[in-house]
Amino acid sequence: MTPSPLALYDPTLDLVLERVVDVAPRLVWAAWTTPELIMKWFAPAPWTVSECEIDLRPGGAFRTVMRSPEGDAYPNSGCILEVVPEQRLVFTDALLPGFRPAAEPFFTAAVMLTPEGAGTRYVARAIHSDPAGRAKHEAMGFHEGWGICLDQLVALARTL
Amino acid sequence: MTPSPLALYDPTLDLVLERVVDVAPRLVWAAWTTPELIMKWFAPAPWTVSECEIDLRPGGAFRTVMRSPEGDAYPNSGCILEVVPEQRLVFTDALLPGFRPAAEPFFTAAVMLTPEGAGTRYVARAIHSDPAGRAKHEAMGFHEGWGICLDQLVALARTL
Repeated sequence: MTPSPLALYDPTLDLVLERVVDVAPRLVWAAWTTPELIMKWFAPAPWTVSECEIDLRPGGAFRTVMRSPEGDAYPNSGCILEVVPEQRLVFTDALLPGFRPAAEPFFTAAVMLTPEGAGTRYVARAIHSDPAGRAKHEAMGFHEGWGICLDQLVALARTL
Repeated sequence: MTPSPLALYDPTLDLVLERVVDVAPRLVWAAWTTPELIMKWFAPAPWTVSECEIDLRPGGAFRTVMRSPEGDAYPNSGCILEVVPEQRLVFTDALLPGFRPAAEPFFTAAVMLTPEGAGTRYVARAIHSDPAGRAKHEAMGFHEGWGICLDQLVALARTL
């Protein structure tokens, strides 16, 4: 077996949030794959998620609508690429559901979970096509935003 | 079970070549997934294929280099999305191997095989992001080119 295609990590193109959290992989997985749960943590407060649709299989939809504190809607429509329960979820906005190429591709997200003690080593990678895409995402506040959302995810997972 | 995401066929965005051929699905599948075989049928003669790399799993490479009769090289690098042996192969140039968004996305290809008698119902769909992409692909000679290549594939498969 050759290494996973996700071994093609490139620090000049990718952004990574990696942390060990004290909730089990099955709870992190549930938070990432259940629309009613996504709506509770996926946007950094005071932003909210007003809609979420997940068709959890390759080619299926991963769609959210975020709301700014002013109520403006920011829809995102993507396509799920890989589903390995409690281990790996990959989706991209470079494709729409049904694998159709999208008009404005930005990044692929890979969420990778491994058990660590009673908790989870959580690795979220944002994969871009060029250094400009990576820089734009970093300037948008990738590390702070994804970090706040992970805090929210963990707080929610503890209640499950 | 909801319908396959590939049920999202849109005749205003997609091009389709559908034909019943007199070789079994397992031979068509072999011709599509074995680099040494791809090199014998994937370009319409007198064009040729000088290189082919296939890493047959989601996220893996589907890469070819075509050569014009004058010897000019036309490389294509794509990413495999779905592998259902002898039934369905999906790949796209909207992503590079490892699911990285590509700089110049054009189309996703879905090859769908179903047994029909001793032969195969062969459906090859090219999935575009907009009508302009579909029109460009049609003007490039999609139907003639993919038809000639299928003739070449069938002639090769009969020898396997």
